[in-house]
Amino acid sequence: MKSESIKIGLVGLGTVGGGVYEILEKHRSLLAQRIGAPVEIKKIAVRSKGKKRGKKIPAALFTEDVGEILRDPEIRIVVEVMGGTKEAKTLAFAAIKAGKHLVTANKALLALHGKEVFTAAMKAKVDVCFEAAVGGGIPILRALREGFVANEIRSLYGIVNGTCNFILTEMSQKGADFQSTLKRAQELGYAEADPTFDIDGWDAAHKLAILVSIAYGVHVPLQKLFVEGIRRVSAFDLECAKRFGFEIKLLAIAKSQGGKIQARVHPTMIPAGSMLAAVRGVHNAISIDGDSVGEGMLYGAGAGSGPTASAVVGDIVEVARNLIAGVAYTVPPLGLYTDKVRDAAIESVGALRSSYYLRFQATDRPGVLSKIAAILGRHRISISSVYQNVREEGRVVPIVILTHEALEKDIQAAIAKVDRLEVMKEKTLLIRVEENCR
Amino acid sequence: MKSESIKIGLVGLGTVGGGVYEILEKHRSLLAQRIGAPVEIKKIAVRSKGKKRGKKIPAALFTEDVGEILRDPEIRIVVEVMGGTKEAKTLAFAAIKAGKHLVTANKALLALHGKEVFTAAMKAKVDVCFEAAVGGGIPILRALREGFVANEIRSLYGIVNGTCNFILTEMSQKGADFQSTLKRAQELGYAEADPTFDIDGWDAAHKLAILVSIAYGVHVPLQKLFVEGIRRVSAFDLECAKRFGFEIKLLAIAKSQGGKIQARVHPTMIPAGSMLAAVRGVHNAISIDGDSVGEGMLYGAGAGSGPTASAVVGDIVEVARNLIAGVAYTVPPLGLYTDKVRDAAIESVGALRSSYYLRFQATDRPGVLSKIAAILGRHRISISSVYQNVREEGRVVPIVILTHEALEKDIQAAIAKVDRLEVMKEKTLLIRVEENCR
Repeated sequence: MKSESIKIGLVGLGTVGGGVYEILEKHRSLLAQRIGAPVEIKKIAVRSKGKKRGKKIPAALFTEDVGEILRDPEIRIVVEVMGGTKEAKTLAFAAIKAGKHLVTANKALLALHGKEVFTAAMKAKVDVCFEAAVGGGIPILRALREGFVANEIRSLYGIVNGTCNFILTEMSQKGADFQSTLKRAQELGYAEADPTFDIDGWDAAHKLAILVSIAYGVHVPLQKLFVEGIRRVSAFDLECAKRFGFEIKLLAIAKSQGGKIQARVHPTMIPAGSMLAAVRGVHNAISIDGDSVGEGMLYGAGAGSGPTASAVVGDIVEVARNLIAGVAYTVPPLGLYTDKVRDAAIESVGALRSSYYLRFQATDRPGVLSKIAAILGRHRISISSVYQNVREEGRVVPIVILTHEALEKDIQAAIAKVDRLEVMKEKTLLIRVEENCR
Repeated sequence: MKSESIKIGLVGLGTVGGGVYEILEKHRSLLAQRIGAPVEIKKIAVRSKGKKRGKKIPAALFTEDVGEILRDPEIRIVVEVMGGTKEAKTLAFAAIKAGKHLVTANKALLALHGKEVFTAAMKAKVDVCFEAAVGGGIPILRALREGFVANEIRSLYGIVNGTCNFILTEMSQKGADFQSTLKRAQELGYAEADPTFDIDGWDAAHKLAILVSIAYGVHVPLQKLFVEGIRRVSAFDLECAKRFGFEIKLLAIAKSQGGKIQARVHPTMIPAGSMLAAVRGVHNAISIDGDSVGEGMLYGAGAGSGPTASAVVGDIVEVARNLIAGVAYTVPPLGLYTDKVRDAAIESVGALRSSYYLRFQATDRPGVLSKIAAILGRHRISISSVYQNVREEGRVVPIVILTHEALEKDIQAAIAKVDRLEVMKEKTLLIRVEENCR
C-alpha cells in the first residue's frame, strides 16, 4: 500500500462539486482504507474566487485559472463538475491531452461529444468515468460494463428524469392537471423555471444516448433518437391508463434486434403491477433484460448533490485504485476494447411495432366512432378496447382506443387521416404501450 | 490488446457450471471484445467423466483430477462451481496457493471460511471474486465495493431467498397456508425436498454474512447472526399485515450505529407501498441506504442457471481484464486494503429497538386482553393497535397487537410471561416491524 496521496483537481464547485468536496472530507479515512491511499483535492477551479460559499474551504485551494490544474504534474485526476458543454469540452480534451484521467458528471458533454472524447481517451489510454451522468447515484453504467458484461442486452427501460416522474406520479395519484403539477414541481425545486429540457424529454434523451452507447458498445448520434415529452399527457389519460391496468411513465427505451437498435424517449403505458410502475416521485430506475441474467432493475435517487457526488466519488475511487496499481483503462468507457467503435444503426420509429393508446377529441355525433374505426381498419390496425365515458351530443368529448400490435407508420398515417375529419377538434394523442415492461 | 487467450479451469459442471460453459460459448466473440482477449475453458474437473450430459462438450476438456487444473501453469483462473464446503475449501486454498485467481459462486464456503480464504488471497495478491454468491445475477457486491464506495452504509435490507419470497407472496396473494404453499413451491422446483436451509433462514443468513462483510469491511462470525425462518407465519398474519398497511417479507437486515452492527434474518413487516414490498415471487432485491447516495435498490433473479452464471462470467471478465493489464487485487474482496480486517461487533438482538407485531393465541374469555396489556405495560411496552376479528367465548382465537417502539429484551420477557398464562394455547408469534424500510 502506497501512502502518498492521490491528487485531484476539481473544476466547478456548484451543487455537485460541493457534494464531492464534502464526501472527500467526511470520509477521508474510510476512503483511504478503501482506495489504499488518501485522496486529496489539490486545486479547485472556479469562475470567481471571491464568491461567498457556505463551506469552509481553505482559500489556497481556489484558482480562477483551470490551467493551474492542467499544468500541475501532481494532479492525476481532473473532476469536471462545471456543467455546460463548450468550456467543459475544451477542458475534457485539454485534460486528456495532459495525460490526466477524467471524471465527469456532464451528460450533455458526453451525449453530444462522447465519440470524440472517448476516442481521445482511448488513444491516450486514460480513464474517462461518468457514472454520475445517468441516474445520479444509481451505479447503472458500471453494472452494464461489468456486472452484466456476460449479457447481450435485449431491452432497457429507464425512468431517468425525476422531474417528469414526479409530475406523472402526482397527476396519477391526485388527478391533477399537467400545468398545475408542473407549477408545484417548480415550487418544490424539482423543475427548472424553464422546464423545457426536462419535460420535453431532452434530458432523458441525453441519458439514453449514453446508456445505449454502453449497452451496445456504439456511438449514438443524438439526433437519431426519437424524443417526445409529457406536455400532452392529461389527468384523463392517467385515469384511462389505470382503467386498462397501466401507469404512464416517461421512459427511455432501448432494444436491439438483428443489429438494429431502437432508442426512443416518450410517455409509455406500462403494466401497473410492474416494478417500474412502483417507481414514484423524483426517483429513477433502469430496468434491463439480459439474455443470461433475465430481468433486473436498479433504483435510486436520480439527482441531487449527495447522490450525484456519491457517483462522482465512486469514479474517483476507481481511477485512484487503478493509479495505485499502475494501470488505466482496464474497463474502457464503452465496455469494448477497440479503437473502431461503430455508429449505432438506430431504427426509425416508423418501423416500430407496438400497441397504442389513442385519444381522439371529437364532437360527439352519431357515427364518429365508426368513422375512426374504419380509417384504422384500412390501415391494418385492429382495436382491442374502446372507452368513452362522457357522451353529450354536439360537445367535444374524448374517445379512447387501445389497439392491438400495429406498425407505427400505419398508426401515424391513420391518425393523420382521422385528424382531418371535420368532427376532430384537437390533434389525436398517441401513447405507446409496452406490455412486457417489468 | 493482447490476443492470446486467457485460460480457465472450471470445477463442477452442474446447473451453474453448465450455464457458465454456455455463456462462454455463446458470447465468445462479444466477450473477447469486452475483455480484450478471448477466454477459453481449458479443463473441466468433474466427479465422473462418464456421466451423460445434455451439452456437446469436447471429451478432451474433462478430467476427474482437479490437480490437472491446479498444476497447469497456463490456467490462470479457477472457477469453483462444485458447491459444498469441504472439497470446495480445499480447492480454494490450493488454487490461491498455486497463484491462481479464484471465482466462486459458493456462499456457504465464504460465509463459513471467508476469513481464511480472504486472508490467504490478500497475502497471495490474487483475486477472489464471488458476485454469484449473493443475489444471483444482481451485481450487489460490486455495487457495494465500487458504485457505493463513497458511502457509509446506514442500512441494508435484502430479500435474498427466492424460496421464502415465493412462499410469502403466494400466501399473501391467495390466502393459502404455509404447508400447502411450501408443497406447491416444491412441485414448481422453487423449494428443495428438504426445505430447512431455505425456510429456516440459513441460506439468507449466509448471504447476509457476506453482505455485511463487504458493506462494513469486517469478518462476520456466522453464529453471531440472529436467524429466524418463516415456518410460523400464517395466512392470518399476512392478512393482518395488509390491514395495518404492511407486507411480510423474509429480510436479511444490516444496520450500523456507533461501531455496532445489527445483522439479522427474520420475517419482517414492511410498508405495503415500499419498493421491497413490490418484489414478488422468487425475485431477489437488496435495498441500501448510504449516507451520500440515500436509498437505492437492486432487483433481479436471485437464482437459476442463467442469472448465476451471468454473475460468474462477470467475475471471470473482471479477473481477465486485470490479467491483461498485468494487475490483480485492484478491488479487494472486502473492499478494504488492509491485512487486518477486524471481526464484526454484532449487536445482540436483545438490544434491538423496534416496533412489533404480536399474535397471541388465547382462549376467548373476558379479561384476557387486559391481562396481556398489563404485562406489556409492566415491561415498558406501549400498544399502538389491537385487532381481534373472531370472538367466540371458550374457543382459542388470535389476538393481534402492534406495539410502539420497544426494546426487544423487554418484548421477549413480556412474551415469556404472557405465554405462562393459563389461557394461552400456543407460543406467541412475534414479527419485527421495519417502518422505514423502502
